[in-house]
Amino acid sequence: MPRAASQPSGRGRPIDPDIETRLLSTTLELYGDLGWARLNLDLIARHAKVGKAALYRRWQTKEQIMSAALRFSQRSLGDLDTGTLRGDLVAVGQETAERLFGNHGTVRMRAMIDAKVFPELFEGEIAGVRAEGITGGREIIFRAIERGEIAKGTSPALILDAVAGTIEHHYLMTPNSKLKEFEAGIDKYIESVVDLVLGGIKSQSSSADR
Amino acid sequence: MPRAASQPSGRGRPIDPDIETRLLSTTLELYGDLGWARLNLDLIARHAKVGKAALYRRWQTKEQIMSAALRFSQRSLGDLDTGTLRGDLVAVGQETAERLFGNHGTVRMRAMIDAKVFPELFEGEIAGVRAEGITGGREIIFRAIERGEIAKGTSPALILDAVAGTIEHHYLMTPNSKLKEFEAGIDKYIESVVDLVLGGIKSQSSSADR
Repeated sequence: MPRAASQPSGRGRPIDPDIETRLLSTTLELYGDLGWARLNLDLIARHAKVGKAALYRRWQTKEQIMSAALRFSQRSLGDLDTGTLRGDLVAVGQETAERLFGNHGTVRMRAMIDAKVFPELFEGEIAGVRAEGITGGREIIFRAIERGEIAKGTSPALILDAVAGTIEHHYLMTPNSKLKEFEAGIDKYIESVVDLVLGGIKSQSSSADR
Repeated sequence: MPRAASQPSGRGRPIDPDIETRLLSTTLELYGDLGWARLNLDLIARHAKVGKAALYRRWQTKEQIMSAALRFSQRSLGDLDTGTLRGDLVAVGQETAERLFGNHGTVRMRAMIDAKVFPELFEGEIAGVRAEGITGGREIIFRAIERGEIAKGTSPALILDAVAGTIEHHYLMTPNSKLKEFEAGIDKYIESVVDLVLGGIKSQSSSADR
């Protein structure tokens, strides 16, 4: 009897890699449904049908599991290199749209908002997630400067915020009844956003040359 | 005794206009702290120190009071006319920033997100609030087209989403420890966003002329 009870903690690291995936997906779902204040580790374990010990061995606080879940849901921008700034920014737009229309929808935006509302709980853990996203995006702009596509000194943050932010804002302003239509035309829409931003960058570079 | 109990419902419409302001501010605060799922009318009445009867005479559901509160927190863009597109877009940017840095911070963004998560509860009521924002913004673009500042066929939504969305996204990506710094430089930042967007519009108009 004591053997059975102590077995889980004796097992060491993941035997079943699916357990992590299940715990992280469940975290995103519950957070989306319940919000930050009502999220807790026991609830996550129960809904994921995973033993508490298996969860606590990996994550000890809801801040920790939530940032792991956000990382898990985030496609890395660092690996992305299409060879042109336009191609890279379209890919950033696609990543943004896939996230919004995907299973975990607005989870990332809500998390960034909750980081403002519950800073003492959340901000420290989320800072790393945010920094990874920013670093990946910067690479895109630095490569474009190296290729001579845009002028030195172009602000990476401004460009990336403009591409992702425009799409996010449009998504939030779209009534639910029109979301399907928005999604159907999303590729063309992303291109129009990227072309607006690229036109803006180029007009700034040329006025700086003058 | 019965007279005192029946008195409130006999009073008719607002005697104390402060009551409405107090109820709407409290709604925004509680929503910001607790989220949509835990918000309810009795809680609002208690926190606002207003009798339930006085609340229920005005709003019968939390959807109704929440949309009234969002309207109350929204400065109308319709009244705004600085005479130039750049001036108007800077004003849109200022309105966005004031909202984010203001008392009720991210409430509007969270409400738009919750409208996606709890559509059956929320979407109908919020549609009107959203539509008012969009109508006000469109006027800005139509006036600029009339003045000949930009080409016919320029998408109002794309421009307004770009100005507000870029600022919102930047706000969400800014760590709390750097928010003060961001706020201190907000006027210059808003101008750089507006100039990026204006440059983009103008480069599109000129490539359409060709």
